[in-house]
Amino acid sequence: LSEAGNAKLLSVLGGKVETPPPVWLMRQAGRYLPEYQAVRTKAGSFWTMCMTPELAAEVTLQPIQRFGFDAAIIFSDILVVPFALGVDVTFEEGVGPRLKAIKDTKNLARDRPVWAQKLAPAYAALRLVRPRLDAGRALLGFAGAPWTLATYMAEGGGSTDQRAAKLWGYRDPEGFAALLDLIGDCVAQHLIAQLDAGADAVQIFDSWASGLPEAAFLDWVVEPTKRIVDTVRKAKLGAKIIGFPRAATQRGYEIYAQETGVDAVSVDTAASPEWAAAVLGSEVVVQGNLDPIALIAGGAALADAVATIISAMQGVPFIFNLGHGILPETPPEHVTQLVTLLRDKR
Amino acid sequence: LSEAGNAKLLSVLGGKVETPPPVWLMRQAGRYLPEYQAVRTKAGSFWTMCMTPELAAEVTLQPIQRFGFDAAIIFSDILVVPFALGVDVTFEEGVGPRLKAIKDTKNLARDRPVWAQKLAPAYAALRLVRPRLDAGRALLGFAGAPWTLATYMAEGGGSTDQRAAKLWGYRDPEGFAALLDLIGDCVAQHLIAQLDAGADAVQIFDSWASGLPEAAFLDWVVEPTKRIVDTVRKAKLGAKIIGFPRAATQRGYEIYAQETGVDAVSVDTAASPEWAAAVLGSEVVVQGNLDPIALIAGGAALADAVATIISAMQGVPFIFNLGHGILPETPPEHVTQLVTLLRDKR
Repeated sequence: LSEAGNAKLLSVLGGKVETPPPVWLMRQAGRYLPEYQAVRTKAGSFWTMCMTPELAAEVTLQPIQRFGFDAAIIFSDILVVPFALGVDVTFEEGVGPRLKAIKDTKNLARDRPVWAQKLAPAYAALRLVRPRLDAGRALLGFAGAPWTLATYMAEGGGSTDQRAAKLWGYRDPEGFAALLDLIGDCVAQHLIAQLDAGADAVQIFDSWASGLPEAAFLDWVVEPTKRIVDTVRKAKLGAKIIGFPRAATQRGYEIYAQETGVDAVSVDTAASPEWAAAVLGSEVVVQGNLDPIALIAGGAALADAVATIISAMQGVPFIFNLGHGILPETPPEHVTQLVTLLRDKR
Repeated sequence: LSEAGNAKLLSVLGGKVETPPPVWLMRQAGRYLPEYQAVRTKAGSFWTMCMTPELAAEVTLQPIQRFGFDAAIIFSDILVVPFALGVDVTFEEGVGPRLKAIKDTKNLARDRPVWAQKLAPAYAALRLVRPRLDAGRALLGFAGAPWTLATYMAEGGGSTDQRAAKLWGYRDPEGFAALLDLIGDCVAQHLIAQLDAGADAVQIFDSWASGLPEAAFLDWVVEPTKRIVDTVRKAKLGAKIIGFPRAATQRGYEIYAQETGVDAVSVDTAASPEWAAAVLGSEVVVQGNLDPIALIAGGAALADAVATIISAMQGVPFIFNLGHGILPETPPEHVTQLVTLLRDKR
């Protein structure tokens, strides 16, 4: 057992019901925290924070120190994998990430030691966090899923409709499948290395899983994720993996829960908690799904939203989280209110 | 019977299966057409086109003339309703719509003759189109749904997460319900007047119905739509109404189909056609749901996507459409390919 061997979150990932449920928030180390902003200013850029283990470790621990969350997730970015694959990544303030868009896979790096070297700051950060994390708290690693990373790599940045990646996939299904395979190899290696560096579990973020016709969802989301899960489990027997195919259809979430082999599925805000508990809960651990905007609103709206989720999740192995990342405008005192609501329930 | 009395689309809205199905495309009068661009250049602005009946009528008919679609939808914009309510609307090239954001309802116009006067160009355009439309083609009116319009009015423009409207709804549920009621009154009046001006059926666009927790979906999408449908049906017995709660969850679509009273539900690209046929098809007529990006791709991807939909919709009263509006980058010859694929099937 690691220091986190008795962590509530790992108990739930093992299939046990914990009351109150463990809680962490996607992007919990983020701009809504003044102490994060201070480090961000000192670092000069978001990417520098990701690539400097001491800074990444510091901000990873900030929300644990302030709120006592049940898990720390290593501060990094999903775009470290495209970076490892040889795609230049820059972050412009207020604009978001910019990548050199690719049209084929021929210039991508295929050399695993090169990937490992470029991804090394994340492993160093995990090794710094591990001994500084209280017993009972889990440490999470993560990576973007191949489909979501492909949307950034094809488009050269974020996009509202994932047009460039879809067009690639529609026009050149085999070439696109080869791209997803290559990204998947790098993602799997990255997840394994994070587990080796001290992560207790890992989450795969497929942030752009919405809007795909079902056949594309199966080929571009489900299959590549299953391939990664299989590879990680082969290297790390019993590795705990959370999947987040954000805003999939209900059928999509069900197929993902049944087919990919993940231990837990994180659901977005629109998913009915009753449905998630009944349908997904019979296959996997459920994580989610407070509206990040209800957390900005606070007050009665927040209390009602929390009560709705907690009530639906009675008797289900469940991890409390948001339906999407926490927003920069979130008052930290509302996060305190949330944790109090959860832990004072009983 | 109007001139469109024998229109295939109206036959389907009446519950009949038509093979091949009638087809029209959301935003079919749009920037992908060079003849539209010519009128747009002449008019000087998008809003001028909406507000000039002769221009609106001209572009409404262009895609019918070029592709022979089964329905013409009047060229207008969902933001004419906020405009009628007294909210200034401007369209900036490449930026999208800008509105003067509202924080309460007190300065909104409540005078029905004022609404009618501001919305009059749409009715004049319908009267111009009606006699110029071939027999057998249906004429559609439309409006935005209260929730979607509220997102624009609260934010002062488009938004990716509908934050301002959600915050209003979470913090001030009664005030927000009053806003939705007022918008709904104007929408209902607008739909009735379009039916009076010659529309054979109307569509209600709830473009931002995704991402809502289920309770909010019921209060902000389903209830306001039901209220509008009831009001329209009271004034126009047997009025045919299509609803489009875009990217709702499957539960959301089901509840919408069961509760709002619409005749047809238009589904987005992620909805499985098999599911839509089996589950929604037992309640309502189904419309949708080709990926607009498959239409840009063309070729085998387009043919496969069309075949998947057509195969699932056998025996179901069904209207072929996109899952979202046609994109400006769409090659018009791919639209020709689509119509040929549909009509040469049998």
